[in-house]
Amino acid sequence: MRVGIAGYGNLGRSLEGLIAESNDLELKGIFTRRDVSEVSSLGGEVYHISDLEARDDIDVLFLCFGSSTDLPLLAPHFAERFSTVDTFDTHASIEKYKADMDRAARSGGNVSVISCGWDPGFLSIIRLYASVFLPHSAVNTFWGRGVSQGHSEALRKIKGVRHAIQYTVPRADALTLATLVRHSIDDTDRHRRVCYVVADEGDEDHITEEILSMENYFAGYQTEIHFVSEAEFLSQHRSISHRGRIYALGNSGKYNEHRHSLYLDVEMDSNPDFTASIALCAAYAIERIKRDGGVGAYTPLDIPPSYFALKKCKNVNNYL
Amino acid sequence: MRVGIAGYGNLGRSLEGLIAESNDLELKGIFTRRDVSEVSSLGGEVYHISDLEARDDIDVLFLCFGSSTDLPLLAPHFAERFSTVDTFDTHASIEKYKADMDRAARSGGNVSVISCGWDPGFLSIIRLYASVFLPHSAVNTFWGRGVSQGHSEALRKIKGVRHAIQYTVPRADALTLATLVRHSIDDTDRHRRVCYVVADEGDEDHITEEILSMENYFAGYQTEIHFVSEAEFLSQHRSISHRGRIYALGNSGKYNEHRHSLYLDVEMDSNPDFTASIALCAAYAIERIKRDGGVGAYTPLDIPPSYFALKKCKNVNNYL
Repeated sequence: MRVGIAGYGNLGRSLEGLIAESNDLELKGIFTRRDVSEVSSLGGEVYHISDLEARDDIDVLFLCFGSSTDLPLLAPHFAERFSTVDTFDTHASIEKYKADMDRAARSGGNVSVISCGWDPGFLSIIRLYASVFLPHSAVNTFWGRGVSQGHSEALRKIKGVRHAIQYTVPRADALTLATLVRHSIDDTDRHRRVCYVVADEGDEDHITEEILSMENYFAGYQTEIHFVSEAEFLSQHRSISHRGRIYALGNSGKYNEHRHSLYLDVEMDSNPDFTASIALCAAYAIERIKRDGGVGAYTPLDIPPSYFALKKCKNVNNYL
Repeated sequence: MRVGIAGYGNLGRSLEGLIAESNDLELKGIFTRRDVSEVSSLGGEVYHISDLEARDDIDVLFLCFGSSTDLPLLAPHFAERFSTVDTFDTHASIEKYKADMDRAARSGGNVSVISCGWDPGFLSIIRLYASVFLPHSAVNTFWGRGVSQGHSEALRKIKGVRHAIQYTVPRADALTLATLVRHSIDDTDRHRRVCYVVADEGDEDHITEEILSMENYFAGYQTEIHFVSEAEFLSQHRSISHRGRIYALGNSGKYNEHRHSLYLDVEMDSNPDFTASIALCAAYAIERIKRDGGVGAYTPLDIPPSYFALKKCKNVNNYL
């Protein structure tokens, strides 16, 4: 399979490393919006993103742009020309994004797998199974402590922000509640959002205001904002680890006397590596979906588990 | 959707309870091999299993027979006449069973979802995702402590056994190893199998021999056999709880310096209720598979997660 990487940040770099390890994927190019001469890859050829217009040798294009503004703007354009994989992670906008990508992919006869990272993606799948398989279920997801790439990127888009990182931190009261009581806790009550920002002098006030009012990202959350020096930031805030947990409780029996619980805990030293590893499997899924005659946009919820396993697995029934 | 229950043990009874709770499933009958007058249901009409031959008002038939001999023998026969769901759980024979069921279902233009309980079923799905999504993964599953319905049934098939139960118990050394080392541990090294048996007098020796040599069930495992009195058995061995855990470890990075881990823990007070709850979702999946024009045998690995969610979910994208 011939693949390309569009956008070359942490995720693109992790994908490049995994593609180099695989036997059956051929990297046809890394496509960047930056000056090509300034980008140093792990070995893959680097082209300007405008070069993609003329390319017809790419079976699957990985879209490694940010979710806050870049993917909604750019991804449908690429989905018309290529089958694509992305990790779009603005939970509240996925429905609209899927509709846009579906229209674009259909118009080009392509397949786009969207929102296929660890969350949304793997944890979305587990939420669904937990919700429907456990009788009378309540399901709660906790992220962190870890850096949210999406929220950090949203911070960096604010005028006057030179560096920024956002740690998502589960609230201890909510963790306790989720293990004890069959109750769905609002996302805003489950997490704190802790931001470290290096700002241009004098911009702190409007930055604070913009952060606290940013819908889908910070508005409604317990949000801490720490303005720090560039030196402190560069030495202290380089973490790429993350964690996701799902607690689900259910009941059954005439008197609800039977308790059922599901607990999932995913810990990753490298968020971009783990995200890339899942996105990579989506490329194999695209091959299967196309073989079935499929077209349009798919989320991981729309794809049989076995379709992701083409890569490693001689016989998928071995997992049964 | 009009459904039927064939075989009325623990699983059939749990299914009847869940169907009674649902708004959109209509139970058209419970079909038993026993004398109909001896079967007392929770409210559903009970018929002899031979009555199924004349029935054409059942969209999905739940096959609630044991896996050791009954399902392989009976299920293909029913799959020719009806779309079916079962929880066939002899891991080593699923491939052959799937081929038999596929042939039968295709010959009748039906859909059969096989091996759709919590394991095989839900945990199979997680094993697959863990294996392919974690880079350089090793995945280990632990069952118990809990009663294995399949193994208990296998014991009860032995001549001279009046009552029997088998507890699957994870080995502590293996649990420790799985959390520390990226290594696949053989199933026989992961579990002990602890059997309590009420035997006819004088049959103990050949029962012991048959248990210890039973392929796919006990041969190769640390197996304990305790012969107990009927009184002790009936008072002490009525547990229906179970537990399943999956530990997966992976690595990434140039020097494998990044560790990734996945841990799943499912605990159920009632194994038959939880199994039934998953099997029930498969009936909804059948509706979706048929709408796609599908036919033949499917395992949960072949079915998109969203197909199981028809029941509860107005908008499946909410899980993203």
